[in-house]
Amino acid sequence: MTKLKQLSALALGGVGHIGTNMMVYECNGDLIVVDAGVSFPDEFTPGVDVIIPDTKFLREHAKQIKAVFITHAHEDHIGAIGYCWDDFGGAPVYASPLAAMVVQGKLQELGIKPTQGQLVVTQVREQYTAGAFTVEYVPVSHSVPESFALAIKTPHGTIVHTGDYKFDDAAPYGQKTDEARFAELGKEGVLVAFGDSTNINKMDDSGSEGPVLEHLQKLIDTTEGRLVFAAFASHFGRSFAVAAYAASKGRKVCFLGRTINKFMACAKQLGYWPASLQNMIVDAEEVSGLPDGKVFIFASGTQGEGGSSLTRLSQGADVRGIKLKAGDTVIMSSRMIPGNERGILNVINGLAMLDVNVISELNDHGIHVSGHGSREEIGKMYRLLKPRYVVPVHGEPLHLRAHEVYAKEQGYTPLRLKPGHKLILAGEGVDAAHSSSAVHPHGFNYIDGLNILDNDPLILRERKAIGHQGLVAAALPLRKNGQIAGTISLSTRGLIDEVKQQKLLQLARNKAMQTLETIFPDRRIDNKQQAAEAITKALRHTFKMERGKTPTIVVNWVDVQ
Amino acid sequence: MTKLKQLSALALGGVGHIGTNMMVYECNGDLIVVDAGVSFPDEFTPGVDVIIPDTKFLREHAKQIKAVFITHAHEDHIGAIGYCWDDFGGAPVYASPLAAMVVQGKLQELGIKPTQGQLVVTQVREQYTAGAFTVEYVPVSHSVPESFALAIKTPHGTIVHTGDYKFDDAAPYGQKTDEARFAELGKEGVLVAFGDSTNINKMDDSGSEGPVLEHLQKLIDTTEGRLVFAAFASHFGRSFAVAAYAASKGRKVCFLGRTINKFMACAKQLGYWPASLQNMIVDAEEVSGLPDGKVFIFASGTQGEGGSSLTRLSQGADVRGIKLKAGDTVIMSSRMIPGNERGILNVINGLAMLDVNVISELNDHGIHVSGHGSREEIGKMYRLLKPRYVVPVHGEPLHLRAHEVYAKEQGYTPLRLKPGHKLILAGEGVDAAHSSSAVHPHGFNYIDGLNILDNDPLILRERKAIGHQGLVAAALPLRKNGQIAGTISLSTRGLIDEVKQQKLLQLARNKAMQTLETIFPDRRIDNKQQAAEAITKALRHTFKMERGKTPTIVVNWVDVQ
Repeated sequence: MTKLKQLSALALGGVGHIGTNMMVYECNGDLIVVDAGVSFPDEFTPGVDVIIPDTKFLREHAKQIKAVFITHAHEDHIGAIGYCWDDFGGAPVYASPLAAMVVQGKLQELGIKPTQGQLVVTQVREQYTAGAFTVEYVPVSHSVPESFALAIKTPHGTIVHTGDYKFDDAAPYGQKTDEARFAELGKEGVLVAFGDSTNINKMDDSGSEGPVLEHLQKLIDTTEGRLVFAAFASHFGRSFAVAAYAASKGRKVCFLGRTINKFMACAKQLGYWPASLQNMIVDAEEVSGLPDGKVFIFASGTQGEGGSSLTRLSQGADVRGIKLKAGDTVIMSSRMIPGNERGILNVINGLAMLDVNVISELNDHGIHVSGHGSREEIGKMYRLLKPRYVVPVHGEPLHLRAHEVYAKEQGYTPLRLKPGHKLILAGEGVDAAHSSSAVHPHGFNYIDGLNILDNDPLILRERKAIGHQGLVAAALPLRKNGQIAGTISLSTRGLIDEVKQQKLLQLARNKAMQTLETIFPDRRIDNKQQAAEAITKALRHTFKMERGKTPTIVVNWVDVQ
Repeated sequence: MTKLKQLSALALGGVGHIGTNMMVYECNGDLIVVDAGVSFPDEFTPGVDVIIPDTKFLREHAKQIKAVFITHAHEDHIGAIGYCWDDFGGAPVYASPLAAMVVQGKLQELGIKPTQGQLVVTQVREQYTAGAFTVEYVPVSHSVPESFALAIKTPHGTIVHTGDYKFDDAAPYGQKTDEARFAELGKEGVLVAFGDSTNINKMDDSGSEGPVLEHLQKLIDTTEGRLVFAAFASHFGRSFAVAAYAASKGRKVCFLGRTINKFMACAKQLGYWPASLQNMIVDAEEVSGLPDGKVFIFASGTQGEGGSSLTRLSQGADVRGIKLKAGDTVIMSSRMIPGNERGILNVINGLAMLDVNVISELNDHGIHVSGHGSREEIGKMYRLLKPRYVVPVHGEPLHLRAHEVYAKEQGYTPLRLKPGHKLILAGEGVDAAHSSSAVHPHGFNYIDGLNILDNDPLILRERKAIGHQGLVAAALPLRKNGQIAGTISLSTRGLIDEVKQQKLLQLARNKAMQTLETIFPDRRIDNKQQAAEAITKALRHTFKMERGKTPTIVVNWVDVQ
């Protein structure tokens, strides 16, 4: 970015898709970064572990970065922090006590040691100065404790970055959205609100934790057998409250899952752990020795994740001595995240086949509320802030456009932030239309085992092709002079039953050799690329005609000594 | 099955999963088949075209098959008819006029010619005798015209096979569920109802087509620009009614999509085509010449299908001269079928990015109702039929179990039909517990190009592996005596960037050769299997350690002449 006296914004993630949140604000040449989130792979990114923002822009402007601010401890806001750590140019990273613990855990896993003072633990409503910016953490209700909006003051005006929020007077640990402070900010004057769009299309109230807890308590009261409870691990406020209630009814409590146990450790340090639970905790191995009605098991895996406790239990597996049986009850206190439906339904089906009683959003709407405010709550936030402009963020295009239309209906001026584009908000260079310009080739990086794959990687396109149409590996021996030293050898994967289809393989071999001999009548390959293309074409054509498939062809030239 | 004097049922599909419906009833040694449906591939069946029932049982009992009865023209009930045609042993196939036309189309595509009288067109409430069975077609409301339940009379009692149904007095073409006839059957005595479970977890009313049409008409009234309407092609009753209304308001109508045009041809022959539409139809190529407010386009592809008109339009493509633009309106009058969410959201996002106004279930609940009755309607059907037993079918385990619980609550006796198990309903061998026995290894066949893959195919597991973790093709030249005639050659797909990671490839080659030379110090491979396993292990280990991935390894031995 330039050193112009201007205020601008650039989204490195979180605009045009859900997750991978990362926003860069620039003021008079100083930069701050808000959040560093991941998103999760789908059918277009097979085999990938997580997806992170492309941080090339940060590396190129590392010297200008004055600070990084984390809004809350959800993976889509914090999950990439370790992968991006070295891109911040050593700038301090601000995070709440809980978020800071999560950051430390992530750094530790990657073997990163922050320098002295690089990770700063924030206080509620404290202000932090970073170059031309002053940033204040304003509490909001959300589905993890210590969630914050950021009030970002600059010489050009105030930005309110809402982060994820809702309005809920019964939020766990009393973390209400600080309406009074937002109203004050509104009175002082807000230039622009960067607002969460997640539930812009939800017309009904987002609902409160209060009735959810009451409903879950009733379910505990009326359940006689073993009880398994699954919820998002980060939403431990709900889980601990439910577990404590179950404990008060004489059930011993067992926490299954790595992530919930991590949060449990943090909760104990930070004072979020209900004292009444302490003596009711049992190890998984002790559960089978207890009467059915005296057991409460927290299981991880509300989204059908492969290795999670709940998924394994639904498959009838023995998880540390626990095996589900007819008469057990599973409460899935969560919602299906789009894209995970099939995996979640498989879990519910597995449980049904075990004659386990399943209570989920499919048959009970009282067991969960979203952490994101519905349309009406988004409107309430803007009525408090009275922003001059509204920039919809945190959403796919369908959410962002709906947010724009709603903002306009409510009398605000929406501005459109395009992925990878710099939107000038105020100062030099701002024009009446608030047009934006591309400064960063927008995309993602993909964590794939120990590789980090760049934008639009060939590797993922190859995986998609071979994963749908299969592959033929061809090999042909060549002498030093290029003379063919044998016949072509073929192996396939994901294409045909090689044992039953020997004839087809023979046909394919013949077709490939015939093609080669037509082009190179003396059987001397003086142009390997041309030869490989000919083999590829002949094999593809054969499998297309004979089997209706278009496999990937790999040609290995084998040099004979 | 045996020649015992008994009545039994065997599900070859549709029990334990959605789609692939196929039921076999047996009475005193005679068999009838109900429906022959497909289901569609998901992440576990990559590259597959459609999934059909495993019909080995039918082939083995072809002589006993007296008839095949089709309930309605939806793909999940009729889509496999061509693939299974030869498994019916020449038995007559009964289908309504519309369903018979669809069957004929499918046979034609596969080059199958039915023999004289093999495809029988049914009449409403007519009875058809097939061995020990007499089958009557009883009309029901559903989301395609000519949908029927089957009243199946046998010497052991009456089975009512509900098929897909709801209760709707405003169903297209006046096809109401024939309550009077179901009540009569109930009076005469119903032994067992095989009931649809699809919407057993829907507590609210399934809703009527009447309000949907009114709502769609209002949307047409208030839309000024171009209008694109997408709905399931088979639900042409709704589409034609909406198109006729648009035409009455002066809009010219264009039908985009192969399937809707097929249904249009059938509709014209069968009297379902509204006369008022006839002179309002335009070709796609004419659309761009019309004023925006004078256009109504039917586009196929409510489920985000790859090549469909709507998907291509959402990508900004020019579809036969039509390109969407800001200000156009798209109405998606359908619901998301589980598993298709991501693809559908991509379409909606694409439209949003074109600044097209999208009306879908996400922001308007009035644009669609399901063709399947909710829980209350399922109860209503049973109150009419008063069946001695209820067998929940057409559902995943989660639906079937919920249906069992509901049936019991309502005072009926549910029986559990397990996939591939024979459930004896009456006669010799029936026991008090109605226990069932496995007679058929339950599974599916997969149409994969021109291949038909068997149950649990290795090929699909291979695809899943290479599609997530990539592949290494290794080749090694051997002389006739087994002597290694060169070095190992490696190529990869979906794994690493070969250009950038030459060093890693070299390392992998070295590791593989070292391993080989340790096992075969004289470089003579006298055990190819052992050698291939050693290469596989060495390469896998290298890529696991260096890149965190576990690729599939293919070893090609190349014989040098």
